[in-house]
Amino acid sequence: MNINKQQLADLNKTNLKNHQTHFDFLAQSLSNSGTDVYALLAKLAEFQVAIPSWALGAGGTRFGRFSFSGEPASLEQKIEDIGLIHSLTQTAGAVSLHIPWDVPNDYNAIKELAALHNIKFDAVNSNTFQDQKNQKESYKYGSLSNTSAAVREQAIAHNKEVVEIGNKLGSKALTVWLADGSSFPGQNNFQIALTHTQNSLISIYEDMPADWKLYIEYKPYEPNFYSTVIQDWGTSLMLANGCGERAYTLVDLGHHLPNTNIEQIVSILMLKGKLGGFHFNDSKYGDDDLTVGSIKPYALFLIFNELVYGMQNNPQNPELGWMIDASHNVKDPLEDLIQSLEAIQEAYAKALLIDQNALRAAQEANDVTACQELLQNAYRTDVRPLIREARLRHGGALNPIEAYRALEVRKNLINERGNKTVATGL
Amino acid sequence: MNINKQQLADLNKTNLKNHQTHFDFLAQSLSNSGTDVYALLAKLAEFQVAIPSWALGAGGTRFGRFSFSGEPASLEQKIEDIGLIHSLTQTAGAVSLHIPWDVPNDYNAIKELAALHNIKFDAVNSNTFQDQKNQKESYKYGSLSNTSAAVREQAIAHNKEVVEIGNKLGSKALTVWLADGSSFPGQNNFQIALTHTQNSLISIYEDMPADWKLYIEYKPYEPNFYSTVIQDWGTSLMLANGCGERAYTLVDLGHHLPNTNIEQIVSILMLKGKLGGFHFNDSKYGDDDLTVGSIKPYALFLIFNELVYGMQNNPQNPELGWMIDASHNVKDPLEDLIQSLEAIQEAYAKALLIDQNALRAAQEANDVTACQELLQNAYRTDVRPLIREARLRHGGALNPIEAYRALEVRKNLINERGNKTVATGL
Amino acid sequence: MNINKQQLADLNKTNLKNHQTHFDFLAQSLSNSGTDVYALLAKLAEFQVAIPSWALGAGGTRFGRFSFSGEPASLEQKIEDIGLIHSLTQTAGAVSLHIPWDVPNDYNAIKELAALHNIKFDAVNSNTFQDQKNQKESYKYGSLSNTSAAVREQAIAHNKEVVEIGNKLGSKALTVWLADGSSFPGQNNFQIALTHTQNSLISIYEDMPADWKLYIEYKPYEPNFYSTVIQDWGTSLMLANGCGERAYTLVDLGHHLPNTNIEQIVSILMLKGKLGGFHFNDSKYGDDDLTVGSIKPYALFLIFNELVYGMQNNPQNPELGWMIDASHNVKDPLEDLIQSLEAIQEAYAKALLIDQNALRAAQEANDVTACQELLQNAYRTDVRPLIREARLRHGGALNPIEAYRALEVRKNLINERGNKTVATGL
Amino acid sequence: MNINKQQLADLNKTNLKNHQTHFDFLAQSLSNSGTDVYALLAKLAEFQVAIPSWALGAGGTRFGRFSFSGEPASLEQKIEDIGLIHSLTQTAGAVSLHIPWDVPNDYNAIKELAALHNIKFDAVNSNTFQDQKNQKESYKYGSLSNTSAAVREQAIAHNKEVVEIGNKLGSKALTVWLADGSSFPGQNNFQIALTHTQNSLISIYEDMPADWKLYIEYKPYEPNFYSTVIQDWGTSLMLANGCGERAYTLVDLGHHLPNTNIEQIVSILMLKGKLGGFHFNDSKYGDDDLTVGSIKPYALFLIFNELVYGMQNNPQNPELGWMIDASHNVKDPLEDLIQSLEAIQEAYAKALLIDQNALRAAQEANDVTACQELLQNAYRTDVRPLIREARLRHGGALNPIEAYRALEVRKNLINERGNKTVATGL
Repeated sequence: MNINKQQLADLNKTNLKNHQTHFDFLAQSLSNSGTDVYALLAKLAEFQVAIPSWALGAGGTRFGRFSFSGEPASLEQKIEDIGLIHSLTQTAGAVSLHIPWDVPNDYNAIKELAALHNIKFDAVNSNTFQDQKNQKESYKYGSLSNTSAAVREQAIAHNKEVVEIGNKLGSKALTVWLADGSSFPGQNNFQIALTHTQNSLISIYEDMPADWKLYIEYKPYEPNFYSTVIQDWGTSLMLANGCGERAYTLVDLGHHLPNTNIEQIVSILMLKGKLGGFHFNDSKYGDDDLTVGSIKPYALFLIFNELVYGMQNNPQNPELGWMIDASHNVKDPLEDLIQSLEAIQEAYAKALLIDQNALRAAQEANDVTACQELLQNAYRTDVRPLIREARLRHGGALNPIEAYRALEVRKNLINERGNKTVATGL
Repeated sequence: MNINKQQLADLNKTNLKNHQTHFDFLAQSLSNSGTDVYALLAKLAEFQVAIPSWALGAGGTRFGRFSFSGEPASLEQKIEDIGLIHSLTQTAGAVSLHIPWDVPNDYNAIKELAALHNIKFDAVNSNTFQDQKNQKESYKYGSLSNTSAAVREQAIAHNKEVVEIGNKLGSKALTVWLADGSSFPGQNNFQIALTHTQNSLISIYEDMPADWKLYIEYKPYEPNFYSTVIQDWGTSLMLANGCGERAYTLVDLGHHLPNTNIEQIVSILMLKGKLGGFHFNDSKYGDDDLTVGSIKPYALFLIFNELVYGMQNNPQNPELGWMIDASHNVKDPLEDLIQSLEAIQEAYAKALLIDQNALRAAQEANDVTACQELLQNAYRTDVRPLIREARLRHGGALNPIEAYRALEVRKNLINERGNKTVATGL
Repeated sequence: MNINKQQLADLNKTNLKNHQTHFDFLAQSLSNSGTDVYALLAKLAEFQVAIPSWALGAGGTRFGRFSFSGEPASLEQKIEDIGLIHSLTQTAGAVSLHIPWDVPNDYNAIKELAALHNIKFDAVNSNTFQDQKNQKESYKYGSLSNTSAAVREQAIAHNKEVVEIGNKLGSKALTVWLADGSSFPGQNNFQIALTHTQNSLISIYEDMPADWKLYIEYKPYEPNFYSTVIQDWGTSLMLANGCGERAYTLVDLGHHLPNTNIEQIVSILMLKGKLGGFHFNDSKYGDDDLTVGSIKPYALFLIFNELVYGMQNNPQNPELGWMIDASHNVKDPLEDLIQSLEAIQEAYAKALLIDQNALRAAQEANDVTACQELLQNAYRTDVRPLIREARLRHGGALNPIEAYRALEVRKNLINERGNKTVATGL
Repeated sequence: MNINKQQLADLNKTNLKNHQTHFDFLAQSLSNSGTDVYALLAKLAEFQVAIPSWALGAGGTRFGRFSFSGEPASLEQKIEDIGLIHSLTQTAGAVSLHIPWDVPNDYNAIKELAALHNIKFDAVNSNTFQDQKNQKESYKYGSLSNTSAAVREQAIAHNKEVVEIGNKLGSKALTVWLADGSSFPGQNNFQIALTHTQNSLISIYEDMPADWKLYIEYKPYEPNFYSTVIQDWGTSLMLANGCGERAYTLVDLGHHLPNTNIEQIVSILMLKGKLGGFHFNDSKYGDDDLTVGSIKPYALFLIFNELVYGMQNNPQNPELGWMIDASHNVKDPLEDLIQSLEAIQEAYAKALLIDQNALRAAQEANDVTACQELLQNAYRTDVRPLIREARLRHGGALNPIEAYRALEVRKNLINERGNKTVATGL
């Protein structure tokens, strides 16, 4: 199924006048207080978030999985799904592939299909947390950190292969998320595990094309429940520094202990020029992988405040890779992704509204009340008309969820694909 | 210092036209989607939050306290401070007294002063977490739960005295927060401690006037660091049930373990008709006692969603007692309280905007995407014009923080009271 | 494979003399300080823990599962596995069945097999957290709390059927663990969900035979990540009270928010006569389902201190149902269970060593130092000789793990069952 | 008050025979399994822990403080108190001074007094978290990170002065714990705050004598409740690296978010040669500053496992500075410290019993069950006879708490000092 611009234009008609009224009012109001609304619209339009190829079907937990109908059964169908989201939102212009679940059969065909949907190939992801059929060595006790040289070499080779695949598609970064760790005290020698990991990463890093970046994730626990080799940003940064200039830390919002101040981590990494990318999701307890902004939207705004600051003030930090990494256990995956994209745009737009000069002045003067007022003034602004306008100008839907339902996208996908397809992924 | 209506009217003039434009636009927009804006304004105006008498000076931590100038040095000055906040916000029409810090010398004079400022006497608070000078028994090892009958009796007598004082002022409820617990495993016999607590509470409860309510707080830890006798809502409810019909659980937002779903607790207590009151504050780590809405405003909104639902659907639950319980370590206490009041009104106004019928329908249909859209639509609305309008109609300030600063309230208080006064409290 | 007493007697010979020396020394030492060692040995021998039928194969996470060789492929083989553990440890004399994974084909045959291994049928467990093939209604959005009456009725009927099956085998209790809850704010109406759950539980409860007990578990999150209908002990107790006298709360050690004081919950439930059963495991982060005692053995000891106190002082509380509920992701499941059983016995033995009279006296006197000394004196005692002696006297292995390896149990199971069997379960 | 060796020898007589029996039995048993008991006793005797000068009086919380009688009122009395503990335990041979609370009046006299008690001067601690009387600038909004250059300079100068004082006494390290941070989002510019902190630390570091070390603490929150400038080990390490070779990270056990794997942090810091010192305490919720080993003794053992490994395998890491940092809210401070010292020795002794070669072999083979057995075998050993023997050989008390009470130390201190002295400190 494809959605064409005319369909959306027709759907938008109903709400257009109402939207125009709201947008004009907000634009006027923002202009009055000195905001360049058109620059802001341009920034919103530029901001594109990659959709991971494994997040287009229903997710599950260790207690089971409730399938969703019309799931994509092939890489082609996954790209088609992202195309649908991109048509509606105009912010999902990239895909982040997971290997080996999504190895293309025909590279040219896949590249053409993606181009047709205006989708780029973002960072590629390796998988050494599961054993694949006919795999020689097992990752049960770790991959890049394993005590066995044979296992480490297999895992290194797999990562190199992932880079090779990504390179053929135009990707420029490898994301490494390691499940390596231990579930019981004493199981691991922490120092040996870290040293193996560092050496393995160096081997992968040195094999990458010269214009590639390496993103190193961290996570305190799960699937191991006592220790994780790369447990926090400090460890990730240490490893990135050990690899070289083009190795960076990647922050996944769900990969932190309760109450961690994530925005401070983001800020310090940018100061050091070492924040590479971002995995968006939301959570209440652990790595819950919920819809972005569904639980702690203010924390997301505070993180974007630091991101915006860093993008404006930290030339030492490279352009960031943005990606959603969520699991869709109870919602239609495409609806869930659309809600995530809107929450990201909302947080970004609000962060752009912060009066940075006034904030800096209030901070210098330790005027804590004023600092809070400045953040809250931006946050309390209803920026939906801005986001809608940005979408509208690029041919998207005024209200993507409404459009998705009006166009009966899911019904069409089920008709095309059937009820029983199951997408590879988590 | 007093602020009169004319001063505020003059100050409001500057922003009045701009406000009017925004309010009209929002009112029109809300009316179009079926909201009765005037009913909503009435509800906002009715909503009054008590200010605790101990929260008008600078707060501190175990590492020390940085004083603030112009703090109130007497109960009279505390009421004057609340009067100032109430003038500006029109939502602080009550005081919650802490005994023995704020025992009136002249009851009639205090009642007249409060009436002058349009301030009522809300729940009174006892203190058995500290020893007072010349106190016979010590609360070092607990009060209502102490192994010593003499200590328990002293604590019971103190609570009865607090009720008596409150009764003279027109209060109708006693709030009991117990610090009782243990700092080391083995220190307490949990069963004996709970049984003593239950019996002590019954003794206090039975001595209260027939129109009084008893609010029982719970808290997992601090100042004891291993166990607290009333560690959670389940224990508080058990004790309230053991006392009788007019005993209720009081929820303080900061008194929960990390990640607790507080809104569910609120909802279930209202279903059972046992939610008595509420202490507002915000926190990131523990009982941080920060400005309401400064850390997790969406969680506050979700709590208000349940409160609004309960107030509309649970006649079995009594009217709730609302109070702020925060500590002002780095901000001017009055500015901090004003920001808290605004955050409370904002959350309440947004919760009132939720389309409850549509939400119920989406819940019944398990349309999770729609449930989220409905909540977020309300939350993303900028309700500040509504709150300003409600204030304006009752003679308050359009922007209380701006007015507070324009009127140089703090400077005036310092002039009147001097630099070195220290308010009793935490 | 079976292990006979002679095999174990032969194996025990090697360490027997050494054990005897250690046991005699400890027994003498304990007797000197007034402990009745033989009464203690009798208590240890009596203490039997049920093994859940789903925990005999490798466990996994949402990121995958690494299989283990020689897993049991049928209920018969599961009972055989428990028989092996029981032979070695003499403390695993019960099985807790999970329905529908382990419905017997031939009840008499299964009962005979269990009797042969000296294994009783403990509480039976229903499953409404997954959809079974050909099931009419789906539990995706809940079971006993579902908004749909048809789903609730199906879930109730399933529970009734589980009771029926258990009854044929001699079980006397039903354990209900509900995954019901919501993953997003707004998804659930908390009050309606709880009311449905209460009514469903009453329907199940009233259908149970008169000598059956109902155990109601609670859990704050997972597999739902925003709310769980039965989120804590307070909710579970409320539901149990709503059902009747034979309904109880079941505590699973992993089902708590970070830092919860579980021993206090245990103590208060026993005071109220409402603690029904116990699920043992250990965890560092969430419901990690690790080997009992592998992470927080002192906390386990503190819990046993309360259990021992309750068993001695709370006649109002019924005999407790003990069960292990762990997941074996990286260890041989049988070795893992043996380690869990040893940790349970160790905690129990140490708790039995606490000088309860001296502790009560120190508590009454608020001699906190002495309270701690009394607990730590018991905890620091090396009780392994006691546990070994208790096993020895009942024909078990002095060192079960060593014996398991010496007898090459896993190798034998693989020979019998093959490499590729997969046990049903988590 | 002083305790002389004869007094202790007399007291020890009562339990001597019993102790000898237990020690001989354990020594024989350990020797049989290859442990060099006398080497182990020597290590235990060598291990000395500094007592902080602020932890000899009652501690408190923001809710108040319950004084303890006979508290030391001067630095001399504090050293006398440590002398008492050292006499009894033979493991408290150092003091860690806090400036400005404990500035000596007469350096020679203090050095002589300390020498008399066999007490060394360990790391000195600066205080920039409180304002001292007549201090020019306030630390309310931070010290080394303050936006004001004047405040930063004052804080730097204070630290330099602390080094100077310590140098006169023979100290060789400065411990910097910064309370700097923010209580509200927006209050701080994270990047500027960190940069100021780095520059301030460099200024202090470069002024230190060439044989001094700088220890940099980290802490996630408290007394600031939104962010702390040095929030975690990653930040501390970054700052230490920015200062130079003799700057190190200091780990305080209570300064971590819930569930942090501290032993892994310790291990990685030693691998990098950057672990400088250690603050012992225990906690259940936050920085509770409870008696060492009173809540999570197994975690302490796991940490010591890494420390022992590092001391044996990481020559790149310097000798560590050991210190207790606890608060005595409900116990006699001296009894509390004695219990802490015993718990430290116990964890150390047990860690020394781990069969490191077997553990390494089991780790290499991924024999997780065996790894756990090896740790638990060491942990389950009752090492109290070893610790008693080590004390006995150096003239300490077999049972320090019993001796402390038999000698009526507190009563004597009250007689000497009176009831109303209050020690400076927290």
